[in-house]
Amino acid sequence: MIPQPIKHLIEPEDFTIEELNTLIALAKEMYTFPEKYSEKCKGKILATLFYEPSTRTRLSFESAMLRLGGKTLGFSDANTSSVSKGESIADTISVISGYADIAVMRHPKEGAPKLASQYAHIPIINAGDGGHQHPTQTLTDLLTINMHKGSFENQTVAFCGDLKFGRTVHSLIKTLARYNIKKFILVSPEELTLPDSLKTKLLREYNVELKEVRFLEEVIEEIDILYMTRIQKERFFNEADYNRLKDSYILDLQKIKAAKEDMIIMHPLPRVNEIAYEVDADPRAVYFEQAKLGVYIRMALITKLLGVE
Amino acid sequence: MIPQPIKHLIEPEDFTIEELNTLIALAKEMYTFPEKYSEKCKGKILATLFYEPSTRTRLSFESAMLRLGGKTLGFSDANTSSVSKGESIADTISVISGYADIAVMRHPKEGAPKLASQYAHIPIINAGDGGHQHPTQTLTDLLTINMHKGSFENQTVAFCGDLKFGRTVHSLIKTLARYNIKKFILVSPEELTLPDSLKTKLLREYNVELKEVRFLEEVIEEIDILYMTRIQKERFFNEADYNRLKDSYILDLQKIKAAKEDMIIMHPLPRVNEIAYEVDADPRAVYFEQAKLGVYIRMALITKLLGVE
Amino acid sequence: MIPQPIKHLIEPEDFTIEELNTLIALAKEMYTFPEKYSEKCKGKILATLFYEPSTRTRLSFESAMLRLGGKTLGFSDANTSSVSKGESIADTISVISGYADIAVMRHPKEGAPKLASQYAHIPIINAGDGGHQHPTQTLTDLLTINMHKGSFENQTVAFCGDLKFGRTVHSLIKTLARYNIKKFILVSPEELTLPDSLKTKLLREYNVELKEVRFLEEVIEEIDILYMTRIQKERFFNEADYNRLKDSYILDLQKIKAAKEDMIIMHPLPRVNEIAYEVDADPRAVYFEQAKLGVYIRMALITKLLGVE
Repeated sequence: MIPQPIKHLIEPEDFTIEELNTLIALAKEMYTFPEKYSEKCKGKILATLFYEPSTRTRLSFESAMLRLGGKTLGFSDANTSSVSKGESIADTISVISGYADIAVMRHPKEGAPKLASQYAHIPIINAGDGGHQHPTQTLTDLLTINMHKGSFENQTVAFCGDLKFGRTVHSLIKTLARYNIKKFILVSPEELTLPDSLKTKLLREYNVELKEVRFLEEVIEEIDILYMTRIQKERFFNEADYNRLKDSYILDLQKIKAAKEDMIIMHPLPRVNEIAYEVDADPRAVYFEQAKLGVYIRMALITKLLGVE
Repeated sequence: MIPQPIKHLIEPEDFTIEELNTLIALAKEMYTFPEKYSEKCKGKILATLFYEPSTRTRLSFESAMLRLGGKTLGFSDANTSSVSKGESIADTISVISGYADIAVMRHPKEGAPKLASQYAHIPIINAGDGGHQHPTQTLTDLLTINMHKGSFENQTVAFCGDLKFGRTVHSLIKTLARYNIKKFILVSPEELTLPDSLKTKLLREYNVELKEVRFLEEVIEEIDILYMTRIQKERFFNEADYNRLKDSYILDLQKIKAAKEDMIIMHPLPRVNEIAYEVDADPRAVYFEQAKLGVYIRMALITKLLGVE
Repeated sequence: MIPQPIKHLIEPEDFTIEELNTLIALAKEMYTFPEKYSEKCKGKILATLFYEPSTRTRLSFESAMLRLGGKTLGFSDANTSSVSKGESIADTISVISGYADIAVMRHPKEGAPKLASQYAHIPIINAGDGGHQHPTQTLTDLLTINMHKGSFENQTVAFCGDLKFGRTVHSLIKTLARYNIKKFILVSPEELTLPDSLKTKLLREYNVELKEVRFLEEVIEEIDILYMTRIQKERFFNEADYNRLKDSYILDLQKIKAAKEDMIIMHPLPRVNEIAYEVDADPRAVYFEQAKLGVYIRMALITKLLGVE
């Protein structure tokens, strides 16, 4: 028997468009017929190696594995664990390979999950490494769009808020560009626009249509998918700018009055105040459903990497 | 299909006497025939959301869910989790509703579980909110009394220790008053008597017989159920008072010599020094059994709220 | 029915050589046919009571229980739990006895698991108590040697590094002495030699052959089993000594050139720098396999103590 190379998920580019589509289709199937998959991972163990706390992401992975009939073990914070004390990531993952069948790793340092995957005898999933990558958030976003829009083609996707620093936004934009997205609209204050290098890449490599504006009101009528992000006060050069601008980036019912009826409002959560609570009851708000869909795309991912789908 | 309203347990008053009796009967059945219920929650997930540590309570809930064939996920301390950072309880519970089928919440702030229940799409169990409520402790106490005494009627129940601050005592007294309890005896130092408002309520609304004494020796012969609680030094006005009185509220074999042979001694645990270790071997000491029964009443509660009993 | 006394594992001496052999044989069987044992502990709960963090040990036990079809609950650090606050170990274990079917305890204080076992109504496994005992590490080491060497007789076992303070080394040496080990070679700096009392015991009670040297090069050709340990800088009297000696106790490919082809290199992990990474690829390096075997010996132990093997 020729051993198959172990498949990992370190960044979204690890999957081809075809593989992404297969994953999305499987997640939808799991969402519709969960009981068909409730024993798929029986006898399998997922290790959750969280070198920094990220409770929502950790619980989403644990829920995914439990809903597949599998089990979990791990740690939720390296500070209260003894794992990181003087032991290399290479050694830790070599040991964990003997304890579990698949592992998910969150690490404050960029590249840590990649390094782990080079020593692991089991599949590794990157659950966020510093400000670098968080590929299962991108998968979650893709599934949410697909569930509501059917396809990615001909959609106008607007990103609103901090487009400079958010890894979630960068990762999703790059992945959507690989699909035939019609148009991106970038809504941000001048201080927080999408990095030029990424804009250039989008225009040259993917030939997408890009539109940049300062205020949501200018473009709200044409948006199919509105992706909101948090604006942190400390990202601004001075407090005066922040105070002058902050209300422009808080979504409320007034701002979406002119929006399409089938526009969807997404957010990676947690939200602080960038979406008013009154929006939650609007049928276009799908961010809590998005969090729930994150469980199903992770279920699909786990079964794919374990080869038990 | 008309959706049923989700049932929560936020305070003991959420259940009628009839519902309490059903719950107690189910817990007794589960205690006697555990294997009949070992798969009742197969495929179900309990989220344990502990915003402050309470290891005993958390493990009791986890044990209950595991013994029902279910699974658990969650966090044991908000300080080492990232859940509380800037996210509202409403948002957190909306997300958790997508990860789990039922949730238990412990929170330092009074009212937090109630608030959570208003946003949850899954049943919420209050596992203690500040000094306010801890309804599953009350259920545990009811089951323990029922197991040993058969009924609540015609029992003389004494509470000894700090009757001023203990939420456990207040909650149990109010619930027992709804049954036809014969008589309450309150044994406490003057500084720590039951609040007047609660005494008035008991006398007016429930017409119970109340007797207040300073020392256990005065009443030990007539007690059927002796509920001990911890006296904290810092509750006293001055150290002299504490030192003068503390031994009066430590239960030892000498103090229970004159007690009925079938009296039971209860305690919510943890005990510090208010019951001497020599009492543990006395057949009347049921506090460790009481802790164990807490698992079975929680099993009954989980199945009831999930509608799988 | 006469109740059987509860069997615990507090120190390796709790098991006879015959019991150890049975355990090793069962672990090997489990390693070869894991699916035969995947439901052995169905419905059983293991409590992991870690009063200090020891992530590797905790996860090894959890993996063992999950691979047996059982479930786990517990805490990983008493500081972030509320268990230790003012409650005696006796009370805690009395309560836990109602929540779980078997418990593993790690505690910074010597003797704590022993004390717990005297109050427990369930089997207790010592997972390390201060610098005192860590019996499941010893069992892991025995299984590793047995898997590679078939028997313990006629083996030459070298221990290299800090032989003064390491409980792992002391415990393994004492246990191997109970088998017919041919010869022990002790390789350490003068400051860190095996305590005289233990040497005397080995010579008088077990009549083993003992050889003490300062440098590995002197003895490398005759070693069958090389057990490496960490040398901590702070164990030396002065930094000059440490700097002069440290390289002598770092294993690299150069140092094992003259070693037997079937020598095995063991290490309890975590390693810091006492084995160069280049050694990992050498077929004689078995320390990661040793970590994996730790899961199987713990599986065997759990089933034995639960009486479900």
